Amino acid sequence: MNHKKSFAKMDRDSLVAAVARQGALVRELKKNGGAATDITAAVVVLNDLKAQLNKLEEPAPTINKKALEDLLLRKMFVVPSFEIYGGVGGFYDFGPPGAAVKTNLLNLWRRHFLLEDDVLEIECTNIMPEVVLKTSGHVDRFTDLMVKCTKSGECYRADKLVEDFIENLLAKNASTLTSAEQERHRLVATKAESLTPDEMHAVIQEYGILSPSHGAPLSQPLPFNLMFQCHIGPEGTHLGYLRPETAQGIFLNFRRLLEYNAGKIPFGCAQIGNAFRNEIAPRGGLIRVREFQQAEIEWFVHPEDKSHAKFDLVADQILTLFPKGLQLTTGKTIQLTARESVAQGLVANEALAYYLARTSAFVSLLGVDMTRVRFRQHLDTEMAHYACDCWDLEIQLSTGWVECAGHADRSCYDLQVHAAKSKVEMVGTLKYDAPRAVEVVDIKVNKGKVGKAFKADMKLVTKGLDALAADDAAALAFEDSLATNGRAELNVDDRVFEFTRDMWCAAKVTKTVSEEKFVPSVIEPSFGVGRILTAIFEHTFYTREGDEKRGVMAFPAAISPIKVAVLPLSNAKEFNPIVADLERQLRAAGIQAKSDTSGVAIGRKYARADELGIPFGVTIDFESIDDKAVTVRERDSCAQIRVPIAQVVAHLQQVVNGTATWETLTKQYPVLETKKE
Amino acid sequence: MNHKKSFAKMDRDSLVAAVARQGALVRELKKNGGAATDITAAVVVLNDLKAQLNKLEEPAPTINKKALEDLLLRKMFVVPSFEIYGGVGGFYDFGPPGAAVKTNLLNLWRRHFLLEDDVLEIECTNIMPEVVLKTSGHVDRFTDLMVKCTKSGECYRADKLVEDFIENLLAKNASTLTSAEQERHRLVATKAESLTPDEMHAVIQEYGILSPSHGAPLSQPLPFNLMFQCHIGPEGTHLGYLRPETAQGIFLNFRRLLEYNAGKIPFGCAQIGNAFRNEIAPRGGLIRVREFQQAEIEWFVHPEDKSHAKFDLVADQILTLFPKGLQLTTGKTIQLTARESVAQGLVANEALAYYLARTSAFVSLLGVDMTRVRFRQHLDTEMAHYACDCWDLEIQLSTGWVECAGHADRSCYDLQVHAAKSKVEMVGTLKYDAPRAVEVVDIKVNKGKVGKAFKADMKLVTKGLDALAADDAAALAFEDSLATNGRAELNVDDRVFEFTRDMWCAAKVTKTVSEEKFVPSVIEPSFGVGRILTAIFEHTFYTREGDEKRGVMAFPAAISPIKVAVLPLSNAKEFNPIVADLERQLRAAGIQAKSDTSGVAIGRKYARADELGIPFGVTIDFESIDDKAVTVRERDSCAQIRVPIAQVVAHLQQVVNGTATWETLTKQYPVLETKKE
Repeated sequence: MNHKKSFAKMDRDSLVAAVARQGALVRELKKNGGAATDITAAVVVLNDLKAQLNKLEEPAPTINKKALEDLLLRKMFVVPSFEIYGGVGGFYDFGPPGAAVKTNLLNLWRRHFLLEDDVLEIECTNIMPEVVLKTSGHVDRFTDLMVKCTKSGECYRADKLVEDFIENLLAKNASTLTSAEQERHRLVATKAESLTPDEMHAVIQEYGILSPSHGAPLSQPLPFNLMFQCHIGPEGTHLGYLRPETAQGIFLNFRRLLEYNAGKIPFGCAQIGNAFRNEIAPRGGLIRVREFQQAEIEWFVHPEDKSHAKFDLVADQILTLFPKGLQLTTGKTIQLTARESVAQGLVANEALAYYLARTSAFVSLLGVDMTRVRFRQHLDTEMAHYACDCWDLEIQLSTGWVECAGHADRSCYDLQVHAAKSKVEMVGTLKYDAPRAVEVVDIKVNKGKVGKAFKADMKLVTKGLDALAADDAAALAFEDSLATNGRAELNVDDRVFEFTRDMWCAAKVTKTVSEEKFVPSVIEPSFGVGRILTAIFEHTFYTREGDEKRGVMAFPAAISPIKVAVLPLSNAKEFNPIVADLERQLRAAGIQAKSDTSGVAIGRKYARADELGIPFGVTIDFESIDDKAVTVRERDSCAQIRVPIAQVVAHLQQVVNGTATWETLTKQYPVLETKKE
Repeated sequence: MNHKKSFAKMDRDSLVAAVARQGALVRELKKNGGAATDITAAVVVLNDLKAQLNKLEEPAPTINKKALEDLLLRKMFVVPSFEIYGGVGGFYDFGPPGAAVKTNLLNLWRRHFLLEDDVLEIECTNIMPEVVLKTSGHVDRFTDLMVKCTKSGECYRADKLVEDFIENLLAKNASTLTSAEQERHRLVATKAESLTPDEMHAVIQEYGILSPSHGAPLSQPLPFNLMFQCHIGPEGTHLGYLRPETAQGIFLNFRRLLEYNAGKIPFGCAQIGNAFRNEIAPRGGLIRVREFQQAEIEWFVHPEDKSHAKFDLVADQILTLFPKGLQLTTGKTIQLTARESVAQGLVANEALAYYLARTSAFVSLLGVDMTRVRFRQHLDTEMAHYACDCWDLEIQLSTGWVECAGHADRSCYDLQVHAAKSKVEMVGTLKYDAPRAVEVVDIKVNKGKVGKAFKADMKLVTKGLDALAADDAAALAFEDSLATNGRAELNVDDRVFEFTRDMWCAAKVTKTVSEEKFVPSVIEPSFGVGRILTAIFEHTFYTREGDEKRGVMAFPAAISPIKVAVLPLSNAKEFNPIVADLERQLRAAGIQAKSDTSGVAIGRKYARADELGIPFGVTIDFESIDDKAVTVRERDSCAQIRVPIAQVVAHLQQVVNGTATWETLTKQYPVLETKKE
């Protein structure tokens, strides 16, 4: 996953710009006496853009965010790490229900993506030696620009300072700035992330931005590498880093993985694990943290055949796409089938579109509101150094649109750089269905003559000849010179060696080949687990009508941390044997359950279960002792049914595993009058 | 888990010593004319000791370790990390089957330990700020002694150098050294780990140990901290460490966990995650690595009530115990029930014994040979700084007995130090069944008079009075002095303050209390996941009789990386629809399967499946097309049965999930003549 910021403000900013441009066009048409139809058409577009902007200005479906945050902390879904020592920015722990939702989410992910497509899964180390991340480009390029307060030494992320400063400027001067001025400022903010240190310095000077804490001048911006560094071994000479992404471990293992897969390509390999980024300014809870979990798949394909064998199975699925072209013009998403998205050339290939469709299906299983989901294509300027196309899964949260997964075509960048550095070949083999005739350049070297002619310089000369052998065009040009002039000059490292006709010759010949070697490209769906959890929390949380204090987490059963609440009506001892029996049965069935045997009222017990998102409550009342039956309550409808104790666990197991639904259950056991809770 | 070495040589060494001692006793008895019965008894003991020693000298059941290692690497169970760059000592990756066995193992662990006892599970960060590990004692005490080669600067772990040197010395001089001399040398080796730097230096000088690589003198031994250090945030001033154990995160969250558990103690909290130790000398594959996975449970109990509610369920389970007393005498393990082990005072309490029994039951599910499993108690000298009793699960591997899990009573050490440092109270509350009358010391201070008397020194005086208030005996002694002499001296930080009768008084009074606060003790079962995997690999690996090249991993189905191999007899196209149908059915049932559609002979396909430990193979032959049935082969017996395609997946699912067995299956479908494979 690319570490770059989510472009939450992109559509708004580009819409504002588009409205301004279109407005100018309309004015110009009117002024210059344009055709009425042209003017009308332009006005229609303008109104449409304005309507879109208005719609964007509407707040996202509101949730009581304070109530949600209170619940998440109080119920230990997510808590600040090292809280008793005051915490450290960008570090969070998952408490029991949070860790359980995460585990369930990852198991679902495994089943959805890995089991379905026979994707391999491996687990590599968090610490990596320098050579790996130097080669991958992270040591040199995985940076953010940092500025220091010249008074206190406090550090800031430069682009964030500029963005915040301009946002402030625009808010304060909304009435006085012309729209052209506003647009110019906005553009500076939008581009802040991709500025060079010198450009950034110029912007800071131009706006007169000072350190937020002390109002002091800021230092020259310097690139700050986001990787945590450590030393491996006792000597202190062996540099290591905590990995900034899990993908690298897969690339390093490519050769063995291909062998494990019997040499067949395409195939995929996944890794679930931690990644570490020493953020200058962690923010937004789980959104920008210093330690987080990724779930990444590297799907290796032939660079000229990025089709997918199962594409037909998803081709009719509708995707909400936000291609780069539309981001810069209308700011509007479009809905296309996966098949159309490829046919229209918006999504580069089937393999990439296959994963967009699969991801879309996956998040729909999690309780995420699909009307607040889109795939946004990266602009050419924001792409990571390794990627050639990228679509982010963005989910609309209370803070705006947030990147929760990336889908990058990393081309063959990583395999190529690691192969070059390690001298280990990382290629696939494509066996042709039938042998093919191919034209190759066949080279013959007269070693005796060459050796005699260049004796002491043979090392250099060999290097030059190797280069010729690897470059057909150069070899043919060399041959041409020898054939025409009887001599040719071989240039190696500023030295020139003169060859004569009798030393070397080359000719085009036709050869029959039955296979070819190739460096695979890789399609990478990469999930930020903490961000997806945040989306689940925000989209599933609601409060009971008429009671803002009764929060409910409407998790689908598959990811609920606890599946069944066992709730005796009171703490009367008579209930104990039934509770114990149910607990034993549930345990044997492998169902996570939680009993509440306290003395509080049953309504309070329901409320507690709702906060943990427990989908089903089993209530034991005094009648249960006689009729050997219990009441089962469904969390969201609060509907209740009466089920014999002997059957209840089997029924619950089916509903939890998805082999039955609450609706099928209510056909067998009629819903009792639903009490207003 | 304690990071200290496993005492692989302990029983042998102590047995040799015991034989020597007993031999001396027999000789002495004979020489001094001891009673015949005494001599006989002593000889019986001597012979028993010798027999034990002989048995120990027998090699552990041999496995073809080279064949196993080759298989593990070739099939990508475990591969060296960063292999294409030459690897780095102490780092390993888990390839597809290794990662799958690990995931299955951990899911089984969750079900066995967590689901069973409602143990909570959390997930904390890998990076921790210095204050946490300074407080826990790791910054100061988590060290090994290191020596440097004065010529090359290479670093060595001092205790390992001493051990290796002495082992060598003994091997070379077996015939010339007296048994007393041998014993003395052995004792030095055994104690090497617990020496101070000066003692270590003396030993190195005495033996004249030089650097192994250059034969040069060694530096003074210095403690080397095993934690990886890093910096958090951009300023470079905030020190952090990679956690050396997962336990600390649980202690930090104790207060919230207790609240989550409605204030009830006992309860447990677990964490599965990485731990990092910058070993000076990583060795033994997964045994001593720099990055590894732990699965730890912290079971919080009242310090004076370490009973366990479910103890009766495990009390009759037999444990193989190796208590510290026996390690220093007979070197022999004993078999006791969990109940006896507590009753005899060998295992300190029920909670600890409960977990020994549960761990024993757990490893028996993994395919580990239970005759090569024991629980070894830590000697007083080897206990970690936080522990008050500790029993290691040791499993006998080809390299000796290896610690694979620890079971420590960490007392209240961690909660106490973190509470003291963070000023956050970490206590449980015990509500009495009925209010109790307790005698307390009631103190009354005449603040006016005290203030007047000591004005400028009030800070010191208050400190002294607080100390008195916290120490009943001191308060009563102070009262005694005031009552007897009318005055008493309060000593604070080398200052003396004279109190008079009218300033202060104390008296024993009886108070009714309904609850007490206490700092819980914690019982910690801690599993080294990589070590348990190593044990599983070694204990389940075998080669087919008569064919050393045909390796089999006899994993129980529950932890097998792949449950079913789908094996068409050849690569004939007719089989494709059946293969696809079976794959679809298996996927829908959530069963990990692997098809081998290559053109190799079926025997070769079976061999490939055996190497991955796939318990069941489904063979599709030409008859299958007509009779709609397939052959199912069981891995270890090679027995085959014929099952209709329509039923086969449902049957396999039952056998894999453990709701049916191969035996029940063979009753329904008779075993075909088993071919010699």
